[in-house]
Amino acid sequence: MRILVAGGDGFCGWPTALYLSAQGHEVLVADDFSRRRWDAELGTESLTRISDLDARISRWRELTGREIQTAVGDLAEGRFAYEVVDGFKPEALVHFAEQRSAPYSMIDRSHAVFTQVNNVVGTLNLLFAIGEISPDCHLIKLGTMGEYGTPNIDIEEGYITIEHKGRTDTLPYPKQPGSFYHLSKVHDSHNIMFACRTWGLKATDLNQGVVYNVETTETALDPILANRYDYDGIFGTALNRFCAQAANGDAITVYGQGGQTRGFIDIRDTVRCIELAAHNPPESGEFRVFNQFTEQWSILGLARLVEKAARSLEMEPELVHLDNPRVEKETHYYNAANTRLMDLGLKPHLLDEETVERLLLTAMENRDRIHTETFLPQVNWRRPHYG
Amino acid sequence: MRILVAGGDGFCGWPTALYLSAQGHEVLVADDFSRRRWDAELGTESLTRISDLDARISRWRELTGREIQTAVGDLAEGRFAYEVVDGFKPEALVHFAEQRSAPYSMIDRSHAVFTQVNNVVGTLNLLFAIGEISPDCHLIKLGTMGEYGTPNIDIEEGYITIEHKGRTDTLPYPKQPGSFYHLSKVHDSHNIMFACRTWGLKATDLNQGVVYNVETTETALDPILANRYDYDGIFGTALNRFCAQAANGDAITVYGQGGQTRGFIDIRDTVRCIELAAHNPPESGEFRVFNQFTEQWSILGLARLVEKAARSLEMEPELVHLDNPRVEKETHYYNAANTRLMDLGLKPHLLDEETVERLLLTAMENRDRIHTETFLPQVNWRRPHYG
Repeated sequence: MRILVAGGDGFCGWPTALYLSAQGHEVLVADDFSRRRWDAELGTESLTRISDLDARISRWRELTGREIQTAVGDLAEGRFAYEVVDGFKPEALVHFAEQRSAPYSMIDRSHAVFTQVNNVVGTLNLLFAIGEISPDCHLIKLGTMGEYGTPNIDIEEGYITIEHKGRTDTLPYPKQPGSFYHLSKVHDSHNIMFACRTWGLKATDLNQGVVYNVETTETALDPILANRYDYDGIFGTALNRFCAQAANGDAITVYGQGGQTRGFIDIRDTVRCIELAAHNPPESGEFRVFNQFTEQWSILGLARLVEKAARSLEMEPELVHLDNPRVEKETHYYNAANTRLMDLGLKPHLLDEETVERLLLTAMENRDRIHTETFLPQVNWRRPHYG
Repeated sequence: MRILVAGGDGFCGWPTALYLSAQGHEVLVADDFSRRRWDAELGTESLTRISDLDARISRWRELTGREIQTAVGDLAEGRFAYEVVDGFKPEALVHFAEQRSAPYSMIDRSHAVFTQVNNVVGTLNLLFAIGEISPDCHLIKLGTMGEYGTPNIDIEEGYITIEHKGRTDTLPYPKQPGSFYHLSKVHDSHNIMFACRTWGLKATDLNQGVVYNVETTETALDPILANRYDYDGIFGTALNRFCAQAANGDAITVYGQGGQTRGFIDIRDTVRCIELAAHNPPESGEFRVFNQFTEQWSILGLARLVEKAARSLEMEPELVHLDNPRVEKETHYYNAANTRLMDLGLKPHLLDEETVERLLLTAMENRDRIHTETFLPQVNWRRPHYG
């Protein structure tokens, strides 16, 4: 299958591009390296040393004989998005090419505006390009479980059937996102749903949980293929950050009580989910939503797991609770459906001490690269900065 | 009260600014005249002759002794939005300053992107400006009934209580908007709701129905104060366009079967609703939603009403059904709540033949200004144009 991986140089995009290439698909990676620029802006970098895209792709060719094409540019620029879709004519377009950090979107007005414009316009451009050039192309869009927030009822996969005053309808599941980044994904979902209904496009919205772990079978083949490992307060998500903190002898920092419960997924399952979606496209006109996570964890539960694994490696991490920089419920009901990808054949890698130990060891090996000043939260949800 | 009217040179904004000024409020109009530019772009103009903002405001001062301040600029530009809010320190900010035409947003990619960026960024800028400078300022934001689409259950005012698998929660009402413009309003609603919850701002989202009629008590005082009368296929809404068509001896053009049912409101009620919202602000942290319409009509029902009124003025309009340029249901359930503004004291002007006759007569008087080539729909929902 001809698959365009937008954002294919990033944390999820790169292992996905390799996995799809390894499965024999014809892959084109489109990226403008903004993720690398944001590291420079924030004074941090991946804990693992990552090579530039050309080197990665050359090494992959040497090791496997497989070719990955590239297109360098910004999908939020109309002409670039059009030319990439027109030139490659993808059968599936996997769209990771968005600003994906909630704290980054909350830094100030200009970061909020950038996040929403970048994400919404990039997706609009791809919708129009697909609609005019390749209406049969299956858009596989990365959303987030954070679109739903934490309602007091079960979270379903995209839609909910509501009985109200004696009548019934199945409607888009109500969204309560918790940052300007999460909001941008809600905006995307509405825009894509409209394009499917109005133009007959086909799309799958993958509401992904928090992704943990770093390496996949393919990225582990060679150091040049290594995936990024984010641990800072802006782009590092909970489990990976906790591991870096413990490996560095720093405290594991839980925001607030830590009762915040979310869906989580191993990066090795992310890449598999993308292929499952690609192999099982929806009908034309269908906007399909899958919740892409494999298990629920509370933040405190994760912190304790890291603490335990660290002790078995003879580390002595302290576990501390910080004032929560985010505005979110710290104890709440959470029960989200995630059967549709399992029904398509996903066999989850569930989180265990072995995975955590590997993350801890990787962090230990790269200790000299840790910018410890970036561990702590630097963005406060409560105070708007015009900026 | 110190009230900032963003978009105060437009069809709803101008009569609102005058009405609030007449009630003794201190009013500042912010506008960048984009609505006038779009007329030039589309080769059309208001059926009534409208004066420029300076002339309008001078005349108002001469007639009433009341001063309306102005700030000319684009609220989607960060610095301008900040300076306007910082300079005026409004107690209420009425936000009309958005691109408000569904067909305009559907012309092509660049119009879709412009509409969403203009509307979403303008609102984000105002939220940050209020949040940093005037957190007690009440944001009164114009949404649209079109955010809801046409669900098969009753439409409530912003929220719905859902019982699901033995649990209950009150959640944002699910949205199914029907154009990139309507989508932009849904994006705004989510952004504003988040800002209220996270920063403790107070906002009222007025999901307005289709506005008809042209003059209010204040705009009718003098020809220099006249309000705009849009009748073209892009900015002219159903009733006003039908009247212009009938007055010109052209056919009244109903899209499809005409069973599309929507909420409608007289411009004289719009201005009153804004003041009711301003006088009754929500609590800090509350995102309040009112459905701002007074009655439901089907498009065919409106067309027949215009036909009848026209006959009583000795006109002989033909009523024709066009292939629907939009993608929408032409027969559907529709029952929307609208009690909250009535509870605050709104006494509706219900639609009658007298109002329609006045619109017909105004159109007759201005017949020489009609660009008949703009009556017919020029934008097709079904075909994405990259543009």
